[in-house]
Formats: sequence, structure tokens, C-alpha cells
Amino acid sequence: MIDQHVLPHRFEIVEFSHCVDVAAAIKNMTIRGAPSIGAAAAYGMTLAALERMDLNDAAKTLKAARPTANDLFYAVDHMLRSIGSGYDPVDAGNKYADDIVQRCSSIGEHGAALIKNGNRVMTHCNAGALASVDIGTALAPIRMAWHAGKKIFVYVSETRPRLQGMRLTAWELVNEGITHAIIADGASGHFMKKDVDMIIVGADRIAGNGDFANKIGTYEKAVLAKEFGIPFYAAAPVSTFDFSISSGEQIPIENRGEQEITEIEGTRIAPKGSKALNPAFDVTPNKYVKGFITEVGVLSPKDIHKIRGGTPEV
Amino acid sequence: MIDQHVLPHRFEIVEFSHCVDVAAAIKNMTIRGAPSIGAAAAYGMTLAALERMDLNDAAKTLKAARPTANDLFYAVDHMLRSIGSGYDPVDAGNKYADDIVQRCSSIGEHGAALIKNGNRVMTHCNAGALASVDIGTALAPIRMAWHAGKKIFVYVSETRPRLQGMRLTAWELVNEGITHAIIADGASGHFMKKDVDMIIVGADRIAGNGDFANKIGTYEKAVLAKEFGIPFYAAAPVSTFDFSISSGEQIPIENRGEQEITEIEGTRIAPKGSKALNPAFDVTPNKYVKGFITEVGVLSPKDIHKIRGGTPEV
Repeated sequence: MIDQHVLPHRFEIVEFSHCVDVAAAIKNMTIRGAPSIGAAAAYGMTLAALERMDLNDAAKTLKAARPTANDLFYAVDHMLRSIGSGYDPVDAGNKYADDIVQRCSSIGEHGAALIKNGNRVMTHCNAGALASVDIGTALAPIRMAWHAGKKIFVYVSETRPRLQGMRLTAWELVNEGITHAIIADGASGHFMKKDVDMIIVGADRIAGNGDFANKIGTYEKAVLAKEFGIPFYAAAPVSTFDFSISSGEQIPIENRGEQEITEIEGTRIAPKGSKALNPAFDVTPNKYVKGFITEVGVLSPKDIHKIRGGTPEV
Repeated sequence: MIDQHVLPHRFEIVEFSHCVDVAAAIKNMTIRGAPSIGAAAAYGMTLAALERMDLNDAAKTLKAARPTANDLFYAVDHMLRSIGSGYDPVDAGNKYADDIVQRCSSIGEHGAALIKNGNRVMTHCNAGALASVDIGTALAPIRMAWHAGKKIFVYVSETRPRLQGMRLTAWELVNEGITHAIIADGASGHFMKKDVDMIIVGADRIAGNGDFANKIGTYEKAVLAKEFGIPFYAAAPVSTFDFSISSGEQIPIENRGEQEITEIEGTRIAPKGSKALNPAFDVTPNKYVKGFITEVGVLSPKDIHKIRGGTPEV
């Protein structure tokens, strides 16, 4: 996997041979982004099978790595079933990863149709290729619109505390040559008032009623979008939907260490004696969402029950 | 003046003997915060008089240091009149600075009356003692409520890009022993949804209709406060009101260098090739403001015309 800790200044591939090391890489965010976490976990199950680890133990270890993203649980359960049914564990892992790329490609096609020439699009955190094996979820429509010749401009909110917007999304956009500017998270409202046509973010888990968890700061952008009349979309594969929970209140929110706030690049910024609170995600209520851009089309929160039956083939 | 660049880890006093050096210290943010900028500019005029500089040239140099905060222009014009009327320049500078402390004390009294025991108060940037010679504007009510024995808790949004919340406000609160936590700017909505009773910020310039400029990120908090039914106050002395402009559209917004976003503590974070946009302030429309906490009382936007005549004695 690409080591997301050292981007954008170094591009390094790290390799793992043991399931427990993959779980650690998910936990310490060497790999992050819901669909990428899913693919990593799928290959974690592949490794567990190859090293003849008890698969239920492996599943438990992987699922304990992070609590919020649904893809992690979805991928592990999927692999348990596949390997249990006799599929080759390597083939099953490869198929899972390839499948995400296909789904993201479909998300890109459905989402790109919403973007008009000249649009100014805001995104948050990184829901790009890094977050989803390739192409991206929120960035897939942006990529496809750009490569179809639409002249667009992307506002990248930097996404404190871990700065995935500035470090990762900006890096992907630079690599594609897509025009963009990084802004402080708190500047979103200032630019949204006059200069943003749509907002597309990713999602970590979407409840049965359309409430969804995503990177901290998403909720604010959704409220602001409503105030300013800007359409707000979340892009995610069907594997992100968790119909076992009826509302966002039931999504567990990961609280990460306060040093992610108080230290930057290893240097303490906060005064001695100050504490910080660091929820990694927030939950955006369904009423702020114009639509979910999925591989089976763009669904309003009221329409998501249509995919309740499971993940259709794409 | 206290060198605000090196806080919270070092406390250093820097001294200046020339007006142009004071202007440079305002420009490079050795001193910042609207009332403190006003006091520094007043003493800049004192120095100009002592070094027999042309006072109109001095006024022009000081006013060019930063464009948004009204106190800068107010203080320079006040000193031009005072020195022109024969006041001793040292006495006039001292009186200006002492006067701000008095006014902040009155702001604290009026504001503390709004804070109830057990309240959870959010603030943004630094509108504390550092920003206003002593006591503070937004932090004055918090200080006075705390020292009156009210058990309060303060959410400090870190305030990217320059992190005045984390570096300066948290430092002031640590020094006073006031319970608080630093949060990422984007986490404000998450905490406001369930756990914030009121918001108090400072102001850099308030237009005749009650629209006001303050640190980038303020506008967002005001919109969120409205959505969540949280009372939103701006605390500022009467010198912050600019009745020469009828709305916030006329307030010039300072755009600062993009390296404030792309670099942190001298280390480049953004990928090579990415640009950033860095407006230092935003303008919050009057409709989001519950009240302005001033030295003459708490005024709703509709009532601010009552102080149009100028700054009353306190």
C-alpha cells in the first residue's frame, strides 16, 4: 500500500505479510479512507488465510482497528463468506479491490453528470484515489468532469487536524493538473457565500435514514451549504451504507489522541496545560444532503431504501 | 509590547523607539488584535511626535500597516487630534491605552451577566488580554464570570492558519486556570450541536448596520449558531464601530500570504504546485448577531445607532 503518512513529499510503498500488520497499518492510518480501508482489510483476510490464522480471530483483529467506517466491517464479512465458501483467498482479495475501482468509476460517471462547465466545487478531507484504491469517491466525479473538458475549480479545505485535504487531495489534484486552491477549514463559509456551486464529500458510514458519518468538519459544510443554497452531495459505494442502524446517532465516533491537535509535524504548538478534544468524524443529518452519488446512481436520502437489499453487481 | 509570535512557549517583551518600527510590528503581527493594534498605533504616534516626524506622514504609515481593524484608524485619528490640540504625546498615548483597559473591564461586566453558572462557551481566535492591552474583549466576560465563581467551560477553536486560538487564547486560559479544550475549527459544529450554550467572539470592524468583520471562521460559527439556536455575541469597544460605512460589503478584507496556509512552523506541508487562498477575515451579516457586548452595554444590531454619536466616556 502507499504510505499516506509521508505524502505529499515522499511516495513510498509499504508491504505487509501478516494480517496483524495490516490491522496495525489501518489503525495508525498508513492507509485511510473508507474504501481503501475495506480493500486493505480484505487483503488482511487473504494474508490470514495464507498464514493459516484462525479467520474469526483475524476478522476480530481487523474490525477492531477503527470503529467508524462501514467498509471495514463489510469487507471482512465479505471475505469471511468468500473464503468460507471455498474461494481462493488471493483471488477473493484481488476481486474485492478491483470491484471497488469499478464502483468508483461508476460513481465518477454519475457524479460528473452533475458538474457543469465552469463550476466551482468544494471538497473536504481526501475521498480520492488514495482513499479508494483508485479514482476516488468524491474526487471521481471531479476527475471525470475535468477529463471530459469541463473547466472546473476545486476548493480544498485543508482538514485539520491531519490535513488530508492539503496533504492528499491537493497532491492528487496537482498530479492531474486540476485547478484548485487550498483554504483553511474556517474559510469555507467565506468562499461558499459567493463562489461555490456544489460540494462533494466522501462518507465513512451512511445510516438507514441517510444520516452519515464523515471526516470532522463535514457537518459544518452541510449546514453552511443549506444556508447558502448550495447542493451538497456525498459520494460513496453501496458498501458504505449500514442498514443495520436506523439513524446517525448509532454510528460510533472515533476519538483520536489530542496530540493530533496540539502538535504539528512533531512540534508542540499548544501551551503546556491545555487539553484538546479530537473527534475524527461528525454525523451529518440527512436533511442537509441533496444526494448520495453511488455506483448505481444518485439517490436522495428518501430513495436509499431502494438499495437496502445489498450491493448490486456493477 | 509582548511578542505574540513566540507565545505560548516564550514570553518576550520587545521595545521600539521609532514610529516606523511600530508600524512594522503591526504589519508583521508581533502585535495583533484590534484594540491592541489601536494602542500600539497610538504609541506609534507618540513616538512620531517625540522623534519630530511629520505627524501626517506617521499617520499614513501606521494606517497602511493593516486594512481591516477599525481601531487602527480610530486610534491614529484620535492621537492626531489630541497632539494637535496640545496634549503631551506621552500622556495622550498612555491615556489611550489605559482607556482601553477601562472599556474592556466594562465589557467584561456587561458580558459576564449573560453567562450562567455551568455554561459552555465557545470562542474563536484571540480576543483576550493580548488583543486589547489587558482583560480582553471576548475573554473579558469569560474571565469575570469565572472569577465570580461561575463554573464554566470554554471551547477554543484553534483558528487556522495562524492558530491564535491554540497559541494565545489557550495560553491566557491556562494562566487563569479556566477549564477549556482546544478543538479543530471544523469540529465547532459537532460540539455546537449538543454542548455549547453561547458563543462570544471579538470584532475588528463593525459597520453601521451591524455587519462585522472578524477573524476568518467567525462567519461560519455565526451561521451554525443560528442553525442550532445558540446565542452569538461579538464583544468590542465602541471604537470598533465604523459608522462611515453602511454595510459589511464595504469592509476591506486583508488577504495574507499563502505560506501561512501551506507552511506550518516553517515546514512546507502542501504539495509542490498547490496554491492557497488566505483571507484573514470574513464578514458576518447582522442577522446572525444576538448582541454586541460593548462598554456601554449589550446592544442588538438594531440598537447600535444609539452610539452613532461617538465614543461615550466610561
